[in-house]
Amino acid sequence: MPLINSWVGSANSPETGFPLNNLPYGVFSSDGAMRCGVAIGDRILDVSGLETAGIVQPDPQPGVFSTPSWNGFMQLGPAAWSRFRAELTDLLGEGSMRRAEVEPHLFPMAEAVMHMPFSVTEYTDFYAGRHHATNVGTMFRGPENALPPNWLHIPIGYNGRASSVVVSGTEIRRPWGQVKSPDRELPAFQTSRRFDIELEMGAIVGQRSDGPVSVTQADSMIFGYVLLNDWSARDIQAWEYQPLGPFQAKATATSISPWIVTKAALEPFRCSTPDRERDLLPYLHEPGPMLYDIALNVSIQPDLADRPTVIARTNYREIYYSFQQQLAHHTTAGAPMNVGDLLGSGTISGPSKPERGSLLELGWGGKEPIKLDTGETRSFIEDGDTLTLSGTAVGDGYRIGFGECAGKVIAALEPSQLPY
Amino acid sequence: MPLINSWVGSANSPETGFPLNNLPYGVFSSDGAMRCGVAIGDRILDVSGLETAGIVQPDPQPGVFSTPSWNGFMQLGPAAWSRFRAELTDLLGEGSMRRAEVEPHLFPMAEAVMHMPFSVTEYTDFYAGRHHATNVGTMFRGPENALPPNWLHIPIGYNGRASSVVVSGTEIRRPWGQVKSPDRELPAFQTSRRFDIELEMGAIVGQRSDGPVSVTQADSMIFGYVLLNDWSARDIQAWEYQPLGPFQAKATATSISPWIVTKAALEPFRCSTPDRERDLLPYLHEPGPMLYDIALNVSIQPDLADRPTVIARTNYREIYYSFQQQLAHHTTAGAPMNVGDLLGSGTISGPSKPERGSLLELGWGGKEPIKLDTGETRSFIEDGDTLTLSGTAVGDGYRIGFGECAGKVIAALEPSQLPY
Repeated sequence: MPLINSWVGSANSPETGFPLNNLPYGVFSSDGAMRCGVAIGDRILDVSGLETAGIVQPDPQPGVFSTPSWNGFMQLGPAAWSRFRAELTDLLGEGSMRRAEVEPHLFPMAEAVMHMPFSVTEYTDFYAGRHHATNVGTMFRGPENALPPNWLHIPIGYNGRASSVVVSGTEIRRPWGQVKSPDRELPAFQTSRRFDIELEMGAIVGQRSDGPVSVTQADSMIFGYVLLNDWSARDIQAWEYQPLGPFQAKATATSISPWIVTKAALEPFRCSTPDRERDLLPYLHEPGPMLYDIALNVSIQPDLADRPTVIARTNYREIYYSFQQQLAHHTTAGAPMNVGDLLGSGTISGPSKPERGSLLELGWGGKEPIKLDTGETRSFIEDGDTLTLSGTAVGDGYRIGFGECAGKVIAALEPSQLPY
Repeated sequence: MPLINSWVGSANSPETGFPLNNLPYGVFSSDGAMRCGVAIGDRILDVSGLETAGIVQPDPQPGVFSTPSWNGFMQLGPAAWSRFRAELTDLLGEGSMRRAEVEPHLFPMAEAVMHMPFSVTEYTDFYAGRHHATNVGTMFRGPENALPPNWLHIPIGYNGRASSVVVSGTEIRRPWGQVKSPDRELPAFQTSRRFDIELEMGAIVGQRSDGPVSVTQADSMIFGYVLLNDWSARDIQAWEYQPLGPFQAKATATSISPWIVTKAALEPFRCSTPDRERDLLPYLHEPGPMLYDIALNVSIQPDLADRPTVIARTNYREIYYSFQQQLAHHTTAGAPMNVGDLLGSGTISGPSKPERGSLLELGWGGKEPIKLDTGETRSFIEDGDTLTLSGTAVGDGYRIGFGECAGKVIAALEPSQLPY
């Protein structure tokens, strides 16, 4: 499918991540009030304004956009999602008869502040990147135990903390935590010295389930995708994670991109999961391609640096288990999934060194610090560093973007600010 | 503190778990509509009726009980909690001048159906029982690796699935899942054959936090306590839990008692955590007694048996880390806690065999099946079995009860009912 032209001129530029083919969903404010919006070129279309003006009405019951969150719209289901997308495509398309009505609801993106696009019901993080699991397993347990025996059979995941999910741009405060150095007998309570990122994609569940679902059903339940950075305190993780998994190491924050790219926008970019090394059990079989060709990169910019350094480039297609497989597995034991549930893909690393999606891997646990364009080196994040994830699906004359997923790491609380 | 007499005669019986000293909070229906209620003897006081009638008004803004959940009331904070409790004590106390106004809002408990007393925001399950961790560790990893090295320093916990929490009385469907028998090379997708209970207490967070909190602050954030059964599929758990912890093994259901016993009602029963084997880091220090003396037991009743067999008796005071310590630890890395968050204590086992809070421990992984009063034996739960937890704090002439936390296990879905 080629670029679809819009009367919003900036949406037709080959550089924008927000052509009419995209139409991602976010929540913005430009004058105090938070509202649901749709990105188009360098503008944001205020759809709650459109609803109030009677130009769109995705739900027969008015008010689906009265709260600044896309959860209410998700609730309407896939048929309503498609209808609304078609309507927006019409309203914003070149030659639309309704341009004059719609135009007053456009706001300059550069002046908008972005907020959480949806309310996170529950958050689950997977570990579905083959190269990441191998790299981390090698560092934590040695090369002979790198990939746990279950890894090639189960999309391994753990429940995360929904309250820790924040939108891009939110400052990330370095955490305190319990850490035990290998050279000490006893643990200490200190600030994390091995604070890291994880480059991931996130999938948003838009439909409820009440029992086991198939991979095909899971696909129909997914509303859209975001970029996701699962901030990780490696020193806390190493001490706490056995036997029940990571807990406080992953509780500081998880940042997501401000824009939810819908499943519909990504359809042209579907591609298959990598070849299976072991046959999967039938409940995980995929009826068709379930990944997307999305180029991803990570950059780091120290506080006083004048530009960021790209430290990793990879692609979502490196993931071994698709979100649809993850979601099918997630429902096997019977727990309901709900509208607004967020899944993290697991860290996405490619096979070669510059394709690794975490500093832990890029700097090999601190043994091989990476060099930035500024001449500085990094093993882990330092205070003042801004970490930014970007993602692009490149189509026929257009690009699909998510907006960047950025976070600046600020100093930990002073001991005097702690309540102990 | 002795029994406080009520004009509700049944509340003064030494047998009831619901004297005026208790006043636990639940949600009930007796004619279709779900409402907030307070247990008193063999009656339920309809407090949403009381609010509508203008007899109580815990919030200056009316309507705190307009949704059938105690979350709105929790939001009002500790001062409002105390005022409302004092008001109820007054209204229901022997000699109350307002008996005639209040009496029409009493409903027979025997005719009521109980529902979830609150909406679970997020759910975290801890592993804070010393004897349980030692027993399970011995079975899973051998006696020399029984207690993980971090266990005596950290209240180990993992995030659970809030959507799986159900109220007592809900039938529990045996799950399907991925399992690998030790004698097979490859995993299989099958129904769980080692389905189990975990006897726990639950604590409900009633106040939001936005950064690290101390143990003392954590105490003030807790609204009340429930009995909690963390249903566990041991065969799924054994295969999936490394390296990121239990996931689908714990996703089938977590049952809670229908009544939230408030912190105020349990004050007379405070007692200290067991002696520390290793000094704890200062952030986990307790300023005073943080456990409660609550006698707990578990019974099992096969489908056609005429009576239950009590299979375990223990006490909440066996827990090594209090909920307050758990909550303080939970906030160290910065994640907000929210009203309606639920914490599970971890399985409560005493030092001797009949004090063990799971079938895994009671039957030592299937090696020593337990004998029921009916003559049957059990290693794990069979279809049709009803498992019931009870808890009682015994005061001076009165008892504090939670109502029972029961669940009947029903057969797994047939293969033809699965969507694969």
